[in-house]
Amino acid sequence: MNIILIFPEDTRGSTVELTDYRAKHIVKVLRSEVEDVIRVGVLGGLMGVATVREINKKYPFSVILEPQFNESPPPKSSVDIVVALPRPIMLKRIFSQAASLGVGNIHIINARRVERSFWDASILEPVNYRKHLYAGLEQAVDTILPNVIFHRYFKTFVGEYCLSLENNYSHLLLAHPDGSAKLSTLFATQKHEKILVAIGPEGGWVDYELEQFEELHFNRFSLGPRILRVDSAVIYTHGWIMAELDRLVNHST
Amino acid sequence: MNIILIFPEDTRGSTVELTDYRAKHIVKVLRSEVEDVIRVGVLGGLMGVATVREINKKYPFSVILEPQFNESPPPKSSVDIVVALPRPIMLKRIFSQAASLGVGNIHIINARRVERSFWDASILEPVNYRKHLYAGLEQAVDTILPNVIFHRYFKTFVGEYCLSLENNYSHLLLAHPDGSAKLSTLFATQKHEKILVAIGPEGGWVDYELEQFEELHFNRFSLGPRILRVDSAVIYTHGWIMAELDRLVNHST
Repeated sequence: MNIILIFPEDTRGSTVELTDYRAKHIVKVLRSEVEDVIRVGVLGGLMGVATVREINKKYPFSVILEPQFNESPPPKSSVDIVVALPRPIMLKRIFSQAASLGVGNIHIINARRVERSFWDASILEPVNYRKHLYAGLEQAVDTILPNVIFHRYFKTFVGEYCLSLENNYSHLLLAHPDGSAKLSTLFATQKHEKILVAIGPEGGWVDYELEQFEELHFNRFSLGPRILRVDSAVIYTHGWIMAELDRLVNHST
Repeated sequence: MNIILIFPEDTRGSTVELTDYRAKHIVKVLRSEVEDVIRVGVLGGLMGVATVREINKKYPFSVILEPQFNESPPPKSSVDIVVALPRPIMLKRIFSQAASLGVGNIHIINARRVERSFWDASILEPVNYRKHLYAGLEQAVDTILPNVIFHRYFKTFVGEYCLSLENNYSHLLLAHPDGSAKLSTLFATQKHEKILVAIGPEGGWVDYELEQFEELHFNRFSLGPRILRVDSAVIYTHGWIMAELDRLVNHST
């Protein structure tokens, strides 16, 4: 936890009272004392520092902080993701890691090779998945939650939803082992502003799905011959795309 | 599991008998029948396919396979990694993910911000960590284990061990938030054959360590302002470097 997130319900006038996992973290991991200064941020808002005013180091832990906010959270990534719904443990990891990477929009969609029972998992409830997003923000020092959008029906996603995509994104990408598009070429020849990248389910997309993405002008690219776990693929792809964008920024300055 | 790994002790003449998690996977996940053909590989050797000859679908599961090996495993990554010993759960993830990425050598080193107790963790025993490497190979369809080398003393690592590094590697890299080296520039101006990249502990390297790496001519580069979890940083960095190398291969063909 590299920043303490503050929620609206924590504020008491000009101070903030924490009594949950954050208080425990301040006591047990940061080992803070009264007058110590720690990094904080308002969920959805500014970041800054807070002075520890009171601290109860015994269970149940509690901490009173006096915060000052003067710093904007880092910009969101220019990469949004589409992921076929994975099994719950994988989805938790994707949520926290995508939040750390600064992904602004996470689209979770259905696909032929998604197990139907995954759609009944309790992790699909905001009250259950939010803590994984918080963990990602707390790791990466950010306060802005990604939007999570579930698309229960593949047809609705590629139909209604995707009709609007071409206006929102400069690049639509599909990671696929037989993809032949080279990102370095794509990014060099077209302006790159906002990128949407789709990551398939374990077992991959079926032909019908590939055709639908093709019709929507998703460019199929390959990250190499190795089959990565879905959560690893999200991070690996992000690193790959960031390298391309970073290089182009260098070139143009 | 995208390939079934076969160990020397499984072979019975020209057939292979499996009775553990692999037999269970063949029964429960692949739902194989007699005469089905599945992808297999000998640990440390060739890959190929195997025909299911006998199968016991009830607990305790067992499967007899007749394999044919005719395919080389994929080449190892040109990137080796140095990681400051993380907590055990993180180390497990790094092992499986680095194996999936095809990392050939994983150096686990000490650092000031490594908790001393981590060196007593049971996961440091080969008998305990090998299964995580296997899982990575099984995911990525590979048979060659990475070498895992533990360096209990930072001084010995940067002293004796690293003296030989410059001959083994064309690039020595250190991921660090204030790094200013640009990988695109480094790779473009120097031949790139074998790369060693060092990832710091949670909390980062201390100044003494940074100086030592500096003396060894590690180039400090930054992956951006976000603090990633160590396991995520390994994958993200790998993706970033692969993007650079892929682009250079394209340029030279």
